[in-house]
Amino acid sequence: MKQPTRLTADDLHAMDKRYRAHFINSLAGFKSANLVGTADAEGNPNLAIVSSVIHLGANPPLMGMVTRPRTVERHSVENLLASGYYTLNQVNADIVEAAHQTSAKYPRGESEFAATGLTPLYSDLHPAPFVAESRLSVALKLREDKLIELNDTEFIIGEIIEVRLDGDAIHEDGFVDLEALGSVAISGLDGYHSTRRIARLPYAKPDRPLTSAKGSDRGL
Amino acid sequence: MKQPTRLTADDLHAMDKRYRAHFINSLAGFKSANLVGTADAEGNPNLAIVSSVIHLGANPPLMGMVTRPRTVERHSVENLLASGYYTLNQVNADIVEAAHQTSAKYPRGESEFAATGLTPLYSDLHPAPFVAESRLSVALKLREDKLIELNDTEFIIGEIIEVRLDGDAIHEDGFVDLEALGSVAISGLDGYHSTRRIARLPYAKPDRPLTSAKGSDRGL
Repeated sequence: MKQPTRLTADDLHAMDKRYRAHFINSLAGFKSANLVGTADAEGNPNLAIVSSVIHLGANPPLMGMVTRPRTVERHSVENLLASGYYTLNQVNADIVEAAHQTSAKYPRGESEFAATGLTPLYSDLHPAPFVAESRLSVALKLREDKLIELNDTEFIIGEIIEVRLDGDAIHEDGFVDLEALGSVAISGLDGYHSTRRIARLPYAKPDRPLTSAKGSDRGL
Repeated sequence: MKQPTRLTADDLHAMDKRYRAHFINSLAGFKSANLVGTADAEGNPNLAIVSSVIHLGANPPLMGMVTRPRTVERHSVENLLASGYYTLNQVNADIVEAAHQTSAKYPRGESEFAATGLTPLYSDLHPAPFVAESRLSVALKLREDKLIELNDTEFIIGEIIEVRLDGDAIHEDGFVDLEALGSVAISGLDGYHSTRRIARLPYAKPDRPLTSAKGSDRGL
């Protein structure tokens, strides 16, 4: 095995700021790609790409999302805190460029929907716009906004109140085939990836030999 | 465009428990695959797969991870809280089965390293074992353990103190080529995926036309 490169805290600290941002952002591995949809009090829609959405729990159905420090204007965060609702719309391969473009610093009041050509889609349950071009979207009711004092980021927790997806992508056991929906993954600050399923593996038990797992790919 | 399936909170609530776990776990999108390496006070190593690791910040270099409620024994969490250190080792395609098998409920004191054939590798900086077969590993010093009262999970935050990876995978600007390292992504509870890069996109600006992004794939 090739001897790996080893970096310590001092090496990380000595890195150029932009280099370090690329490098450290890569270390957590692949990330989900979602567009946060919100509306302000006047109903003006806002859209922003995020790579920090994670599953928090199935019952109640909760998702978490980390926001960057509010040292710059954060229209999405302000909107969702004020309205109490937001949508998360998975980015698929057809809308990668438009989704990435929502990360540009548009002035307040300029809709990223209009700027990128994506289409807002409204629900009767909440004011937050979905992205019509997304093939898997959820709407969330804000439940908690936890400040992370270590670096002034926030961990925002929402409860899922609506899901929109192509029903054909749901397997018999509830697993959703993200590849059938064209969902992409993000690496680092700007890498976008399509995926290919290697396997679905059975529930692991101590007495089940490791080799039996290989035969378990349901290949669906 | 096909009319999507629409589910509301009542639909989610009515789902069978296991079906709902598969379904809700799928909704956040692709997740990183990491093995958490820890040691207890006697130095006995422990290993567990997690799909909830996220990037929290580059300076200081922080990562977050969500743990499940402590209604069952959580050897990794107990170890990292007691020792103050843990490693995160990215799962690559060669060790998917072994990594998944660490999710089995082995009794306390039985090492998942021994049970799965993975190899512990020690550093002079901390007591937490790396996984020698991983091609991108970080060691973290525990910084904070935030209880999420909504569902009794915990959000554990660590600061990166050591990184081990194949240096050839680091691009000139700091971006790490996760595909060169064979890293996999997880979907739902048990889906494992390899990836193919679509693009790296340039830093987005409001005045840059969307179409120019297409020509930006550095194709590396």
